[in-house]
Amino acid sequence: MASFKKIDLSGVFPPLPTPFNQDETINYEHLRNNVTKWNEIGFKGYVVQGSNGEYTYLSDTERVELVRTVKQAAAPGKLIIAGSGCESTQATIDMTCKMAEAGADVVMVITPFYFKGRMTSQAFKTHYEKVASASPVPVILYSVPANTGVDLPADVVVQLSQHPNIIGIKDSAGDVTKFGSMVQHTQASGFQVLAGSASFMLGTYTVGAVGCVAALANTLGKEVCQLHNLFKEGKMEEAMKLQHRLIAPNSAVTRKFGVPGLKVAMDWFGYYGGPTRLPLLPLSPEEVESMKADFQNNGFL
Amino acid sequence: MASFKKIDLSGVFPPLPTPFNQDETINYEHLRNNVTKWNEIGFKGYVVQGSNGEYTYLSDTERVELVRTVKQAAAPGKLIIAGSGCESTQATIDMTCKMAEAGADVVMVITPFYFKGRMTSQAFKTHYEKVASASPVPVILYSVPANTGVDLPADVVVQLSQHPNIIGIKDSAGDVTKFGSMVQHTQASGFQVLAGSASFMLGTYTVGAVGCVAALANTLGKEVCQLHNLFKEGKMEEAMKLQHRLIAPNSAVTRKFGVPGLKVAMDWFGYYGGPTRLPLLPLSPEEVESMKADFQNNGFL
Amino acid sequence: MASFKKIDLSGVFPPLPTPFNQDETINYEHLRNNVTKWNEIGFKGYVVQGSNGEYTYLSDTERVELVRTVKQAAAPGKLIIAGSGCESTQATIDMTCKMAEAGADVVMVITPFYFKGRMTSQAFKTHYEKVASASPVPVILYSVPANTGVDLPADVVVQLSQHPNIIGIKDSAGDVTKFGSMVQHTQASGFQVLAGSASFMLGTYTVGAVGCVAALANTLGKEVCQLHNLFKEGKMEEAMKLQHRLIAPNSAVTRKFGVPGLKVAMDWFGYYGGPTRLPLLPLSPEEVESMKADFQNNGFL
Amino acid sequence: MASFKKIDLSGVFPPLPTPFNQDETINYEHLRNNVTKWNEIGFKGYVVQGSNGEYTYLSDTERVELVRTVKQAAAPGKLIIAGSGCESTQATIDMTCKMAEAGADVVMVITPFYFKGRMTSQAFKTHYEKVASASPVPVILYSVPANTGVDLPADVVVQLSQHPNIIGIKDSAGDVTKFGSMVQHTQASGFQVLAGSASFMLGTYTVGAVGCVAALANTLGKEVCQLHNLFKEGKMEEAMKLQHRLIAPNSAVTRKFGVPGLKVAMDWFGYYGGPTRLPLLPLSPEEVESMKADFQNNGFL
Repeated sequence: MASFKKIDLSGVFPPLPTPFNQDETINYEHLRNNVTKWNEIGFKGYVVQGSNGEYTYLSDTERVELVRTVKQAAAPGKLIIAGSGCESTQATIDMTCKMAEAGADVVMVITPFYFKGRMTSQAFKTHYEKVASASPVPVILYSVPANTGVDLPADVVVQLSQHPNIIGIKDSAGDVTKFGSMVQHTQASGFQVLAGSASFMLGTYTVGAVGCVAALANTLGKEVCQLHNLFKEGKMEEAMKLQHRLIAPNSAVTRKFGVPGLKVAMDWFGYYGGPTRLPLLPLSPEEVESMKADFQNNGFL
Repeated sequence: MASFKKIDLSGVFPPLPTPFNQDETINYEHLRNNVTKWNEIGFKGYVVQGSNGEYTYLSDTERVELVRTVKQAAAPGKLIIAGSGCESTQATIDMTCKMAEAGADVVMVITPFYFKGRMTSQAFKTHYEKVASASPVPVILYSVPANTGVDLPADVVVQLSQHPNIIGIKDSAGDVTKFGSMVQHTQASGFQVLAGSASFMLGTYTVGAVGCVAALANTLGKEVCQLHNLFKEGKMEEAMKLQHRLIAPNSAVTRKFGVPGLKVAMDWFGYYGGPTRLPLLPLSPEEVESMKADFQNNGFL
Repeated sequence: MASFKKIDLSGVFPPLPTPFNQDETINYEHLRNNVTKWNEIGFKGYVVQGSNGEYTYLSDTERVELVRTVKQAAAPGKLIIAGSGCESTQATIDMTCKMAEAGADVVMVITPFYFKGRMTSQAFKTHYEKVASASPVPVILYSVPANTGVDLPADVVVQLSQHPNIIGIKDSAGDVTKFGSMVQHTQASGFQVLAGSASFMLGTYTVGAVGCVAALANTLGKEVCQLHNLFKEGKMEEAMKLQHRLIAPNSAVTRKFGVPGLKVAMDWFGYYGGPTRLPLLPLSPEEVESMKADFQNNGFL
Repeated sequence: MASFKKIDLSGVFPPLPTPFNQDETINYEHLRNNVTKWNEIGFKGYVVQGSNGEYTYLSDTERVELVRTVKQAAAPGKLIIAGSGCESTQATIDMTCKMAEAGADVVMVITPFYFKGRMTSQAFKTHYEKVASASPVPVILYSVPANTGVDLPADVVVQLSQHPNIIGIKDSAGDVTKFGSMVQHTQASGFQVLAGSASFMLGTYTVGAVGCVAALANTLGKEVCQLHNLFKEGKMEEAMKLQHRLIAPNSAVTRKFGVPGLKVAMDWFGYYGGPTRLPLLPLSPEEVESMKADFQNNGFL
């Protein structure tokens, strides 16, 4: 399996939202149209069913079908990373295999989190090693404390980086100290660290992150890719200025207004956003105005 | 639907663990045997798929089948409360209807929690009102911050208590101030408050809780029922002494050692505990010893 | 020193606010007048410089002088408990000795908390043992996580209860499980547990708390004493009803509106409240109205 | 006062620990010797009484005397930043004036934090505006949630940056998103943002931090200054490698082992570290070994 380590994750990935009709059924046609537009942007690939995909609101069948749809609509060469995490180890393995069959090039596995008190380092290690050993495609770890309430410890990440089928991590907490520590102790093995948000992208790149999964890339894809490139070209002053401008819009579609906000912003930029599933509520008019200001004040609307 | 309010929840309910074989498949026979033994104890009924049921590790089919099995094995008159909560509102409604059909007398609906930042009071209200209005059986709210990271606010509980099909709450956080406040403002409507743990049972009874869903009742069922009765009889001194003795064993099978601990303790007391599903790991020998001491020091082993 | 254990802490203690003039200097005359009024109520004694005394805003000289003033104004037999805690062990010892000399019968020592990461069980033990061994008067432990961000662990409390000069604890967190555990394991030594708030008074009494230090007692002293007595007389139903009515007013003068709120309420009930020191700001008119409703809705205004 | 904005804070500042004798009295001679050695390193200046100065364990007199001593021992041109924060606004003003008189060029004012529930944005604004308006020297804001439990919100920082006598902030939380946001919205006014730790130095520099107050600089001063210079020279690859190597040693002397750890490390590098005041305890032998490994594994011992 060692060859899997050669999959290159460097670049920008939007974590695709799931388009729903007003009756909450999935609209696959809108998804295909969105992907067709995103194909024009210099993304490395797509993340299907990160948190922004509302994956916790989807049935198993829907989860797999969404991967299949994105795979078919994606331009050749785009990497398909599918979020296959479930709470139990066995369910995660089953979903991993189904998503691989449906076209996922890589799976991204969120930390289990319900029984927080027992999610010890050993539990995380056991979970990820079993999943990675059973997976037909490489595995990326996924830590997102804002949603899960648990943080995958850096030393566990370092140990898991030794597994031949675990090739990277998406970390959405944005602690640059942890990012630096993870990169320092895993880079020899080819393990790759991805920033889980455009808000702290530049800071984490500076300590060795090679790519970014950014909700904001769904609406401001070119700009997020530009920030990636500016850093690669060493244009630090320009990169800083662009990073500054991305913080408020990114915070708006993540921390402040969540998936409902992201979908509103997608509508603004010519994509289909549409409604979320309940219990996620639509934004109030005041929230929409506030979010609009976050984009306008930074020159994006 | 107003008549639903007449269902009496006062009493003790064990939240049943799900018995697994070594290969992690469900062993329904062991479940029936356990229920048969529990039928001898003075429980008010059974909670199927509280957190201790490892419900997040079960398939939809398994969840319903477990309800059916418990209903069949339960002695006549035992109230079957089924945990039907899912992350999305629609999935919760679907599961609620299936569980009601399978024999649930009442459903218990956990707070949705993945998108913590958007789980506003309005989101909780919308979720519960839609579920309660669609449910063929009465609904109990369920707040368990230790697992979910969200706490259902007291004022939302008070508002929801006005819904004719919402008859109570199981609160596992144990904040007696919140318990007192909830009871004060909901008792006029017949809403019933249940303690979600034996550790703080007496304290919450004092401010108006009428029953208790206690993991410990799976192993020390008679003792938990005795505490319930001592309070009812006004024997406060004896109640206090028994409450003291229950704290360490209860903490052992919940906060300290979780479901794996509870299952070990069940084995000690003649029930089938067995393994958990991964990523929950079995206790280490040191943890087993520590847990044993918590029971022995209080005279229960 | 063993005889110190015989000091009886059972009863209600208001934690006295410090009266300031508009220029933020202390008005000792107002303090004496307040104490004179409080002397009419059935309090066990007074706490000088709990959190409500704004002790972190006082100079060392002021802290001692306030103890002296209260001692002189207190009716004979009232127990004077003085908050002598400082961040360093030596400063706490110095303040303890000065306060004892100024008339304190007992000192109450808050957990040190600034260097949270190093406030281990061993650090707490060392601190309290040194203070208790050096103190000419008995010591009460004081844990108030809402202000300090640290919680004195139950097992540390149990160990410290063995010290002949440590006679009790005031715990303001209100976790009844912890209260029960502390009482169970310390009562043999005569250690006494006090509730740090009227909001959870009844719940903690039920598991063995013998008294209460309640901010609300500064304004509704008779009612808080009545709740104490109802419990002692075993009138649980009446106690519950009164407890319910005290929660909202107590929350108003603590968690919701803090010391500025408490001082406003004191003005309502014929005491001198007056301003706080900055950076504590006065309540807004909306906050005053909200607080008034909390009292009125429970029949206290 | 506008001219104060011209004080240049770009560079590295060690936050000086306070040297104690075994009896916990201050040893000013050791402090002078330490400063003499530090004068050889390319520091911008010294912070007297950041958290590492154990300022919460010092008397008012000691606090001022330490500033005077450092001022006298510092090489000409070194900027003396004195931590003058107290809990009350008036005490902070008094301390600020005394420290300015004793030689402080700038004061650094920690957020008040005891009454967390009332430390609203308005309370912070009032506090800082009053202090800044009364201060004879420029003011730097100081936010250190790990110790205080409160975080100065970015929008409050932006508003305070408009005050002519508030010239910067030291932020020890290390959230690069907040750093980027603060820099973007304050740089027009000349406000300067300092990283409060060497662990996240490079990440915050990338988004506009101009300097760093780093505990680690007390022992690895040249290396921290080198990281500063590498960034200024645009040598990002070398900077990343050095940043990686500094994380573990810096974490050791801050988050993991605190001031007692920092003092042990100072002894290793030829400075006087010595004991802390109680309740801070000395490191255990195991902790010393663990810390040594953190330095050795990165080539520093």
